[in-house]
Amino acid sequence: MKSKLFTPGPTKIPGAVLSAVGKQVLHHRSPEFSEKVRHVQDEFGRLLQTHHDALLFTCSGTGMMEAAVANLLSRGDKAICVNNGNFGERWVEICKAYGVEVVELVLEWGKSVTPEELGKSLDNHPDAKAVFIIHSETSTGALNDIKSLAKAAHDHDAIVVIDATSSVGVHEIRMDEWGIDVIVAGTQKALMTPPGLAFVALNGRAWGLVSDSDLPTYYFDFTKTWKRLQKKGQTPFTTAVSLVHGLEVALAMMEDEGWDNVYARHARMGAAMRAAVEALGFEVLPEFPVNGVTVAVCPDDVDGNRLVRTLDDEFGVRVAGGQNRLSGKVIRIGHMGGIRERDLPMMVGALESALNTMGKCVECGTGLAALQNVLMGKR
Amino acid sequence: MKSKLFTPGPTKIPGAVLSAVGKQVLHHRSPEFSEKVRHVQDEFGRLLQTHHDALLFTCSGTGMMEAAVANLLSRGDKAICVNNGNFGERWVEICKAYGVEVVELVLEWGKSVTPEELGKSLDNHPDAKAVFIIHSETSTGALNDIKSLAKAAHDHDAIVVIDATSSVGVHEIRMDEWGIDVIVAGTQKALMTPPGLAFVALNGRAWGLVSDSDLPTYYFDFTKTWKRLQKKGQTPFTTAVSLVHGLEVALAMMEDEGWDNVYARHARMGAAMRAAVEALGFEVLPEFPVNGVTVAVCPDDVDGNRLVRTLDDEFGVRVAGGQNRLSGKVIRIGHMGGIRERDLPMMVGALESALNTMGKCVECGTGLAALQNVLMGKR
Repeated sequence: MKSKLFTPGPTKIPGAVLSAVGKQVLHHRSPEFSEKVRHVQDEFGRLLQTHHDALLFTCSGTGMMEAAVANLLSRGDKAICVNNGNFGERWVEICKAYGVEVVELVLEWGKSVTPEELGKSLDNHPDAKAVFIIHSETSTGALNDIKSLAKAAHDHDAIVVIDATSSVGVHEIRMDEWGIDVIVAGTQKALMTPPGLAFVALNGRAWGLVSDSDLPTYYFDFTKTWKRLQKKGQTPFTTAVSLVHGLEVALAMMEDEGWDNVYARHARMGAAMRAAVEALGFEVLPEFPVNGVTVAVCPDDVDGNRLVRTLDDEFGVRVAGGQNRLSGKVIRIGHMGGIRERDLPMMVGALESALNTMGKCVECGTGLAALQNVLMGKR
Repeated sequence: MKSKLFTPGPTKIPGAVLSAVGKQVLHHRSPEFSEKVRHVQDEFGRLLQTHHDALLFTCSGTGMMEAAVANLLSRGDKAICVNNGNFGERWVEICKAYGVEVVELVLEWGKSVTPEELGKSLDNHPDAKAVFIIHSETSTGALNDIKSLAKAAHDHDAIVVIDATSSVGVHEIRMDEWGIDVIVAGTQKALMTPPGLAFVALNGRAWGLVSDSDLPTYYFDFTKTWKRLQKKGQTPFTTAVSLVHGLEVALAMMEDEGWDNVYARHARMGAAMRAAVEALGFEVLPEFPVNGVTVAVCPDDVDGNRLVRTLDDEFGVRVAGGQNRLSGKVIRIGHMGGIRERDLPMMVGALESALNTMGKCVECGTGLAALQNVLMGKR
């Protein structure tokens, strides 16, 4: 039997989105499909609060991260990669694969980078052309404050590139007002779409770098993609049309809910889940937590990976375990996109029972009470 | 109202595949999903008649073509690209983007390359490391005989890389027996899956090149992908799980039909459609036609693009127009994957009526009669 997904992406997909995904495909060169592409682009603009065009690609969020590096930089360029988790480390790996000189700003997993730390790194490397940052580091649950980080980067004339895969639709992003130069993201997390689509938005300063870049890229070529979009409302290569059907519905659902309400819902869910796991003896790993995923450090006598399996096998909920150095030490509970407040008690109930099953006795209801106190506004 | 797709991809998707695509997503790290990935891999092996592993990626066929270049070659390597159409030209563009020295073997659009022509080019460029060929050139409808071309390439110690996006599931491919080193393909054509997935299979000789390659690649990294597959039945990055659900069903349907029957059906459909358009005054462009798409040169007084629009707007069938230099001159009718013999009369009926509407009088039934003669085995 399939477990209910409380993973930090892919996330549970609403029925209306699944229905759209299961429709007969439109031809990717038809006017009907161009209309959908343009519509999705407009929604991305509202979502990111930008007047710059977003470009749609068929790939995962990682593909889009690579695309940003390959389109923006040139061989031998210097870039600062903020590495405070598994996905921050990915920026490092991608830049190295392309022969970019990487300055790694390494932080303990769970920490967020401060504008002062970034400023210091930029002082030491005034020739750094770009700074690569993960907004919501899904491996640790830490939120980086991209508004103040963008300011620090601009004070040093570096452009700032943000991966927002697990933050877009969870935390408000004001791309233009905050001066974020580039945002990349996949749509399989809070945007409630089955995996396979990703997008990028760039401002004028970033397009300047694109025109200078000498790194090889073809499938992910931003210029070619933008031109085709402008001219025909198309993508240069065959898009995952079924997923675009779904994305259109998902974005409309969020628009209907109201973006402010969407962000407020995620803030409530984040606070409630953190309260619940703390009441059950876990520690929330990050100091500045994201609202889409709770990364909870297991009590000493609880093996995180075993807990993940027990929840999946015996209690019908699927969460994620720790990645790399956090393997076995944490569980990661996703609560974004299609997950609503009403879904959280079943998650916490399952967690309480799983802990008891594993011999880690907790008083039934401890986590639930903490959860409900937050959801009902008592905390 | 949506038109019925007779395009050369994306193609009409069977209902059973759409139902699978519209199911709730599985987590890409779950054992259930790994089972699906391994199952699809096995089917790819049977489909390509190879014992080498196929690797699955979330991208279009073009992404997979780029992946082959980036994984196999090194900067400054020389490669021969057979350019006998729009997709052959794409090999050239991709190789150039990566700094590969390209020898273009240019043929008139509609022609197929002969082993002698390839042999001559290899004689002139004995240092060419690889030959890139499109099996079924969707822009012109020409089939390249990859069996004899692979032999010619091996006689000169070059590896041969085949794009089989619009041939796989239409024309039999015996990868191991014919000594094809690398096959790349998207799954949105005869494999009856909505666009967004592609795969590559490599033999030992090709893996040798991969380990020497110095071109940058990350999302498309074959080695990393193969290792993750071997170890866990997973892809390194988030896959389009919904499309994998669909692909699994589509491959099972083809397996049920029997691969030989699938190929025979496409051969019948190809022959029948060619007979029909010839009876209506079109000329079949290629000398050696593929069976998945009929590329028909319009009579002098018929504008191909207008015919495409008329068919779509007034007669509910969507075909493709000519690409680049063939724009306005040809129409391209897809008949693969989910298209069955029983679907062809509606296509030909619509074509006859569209021609008459456009003032190009044809006797009603001329095309249909020719179609049926072939389908009923009279020709």
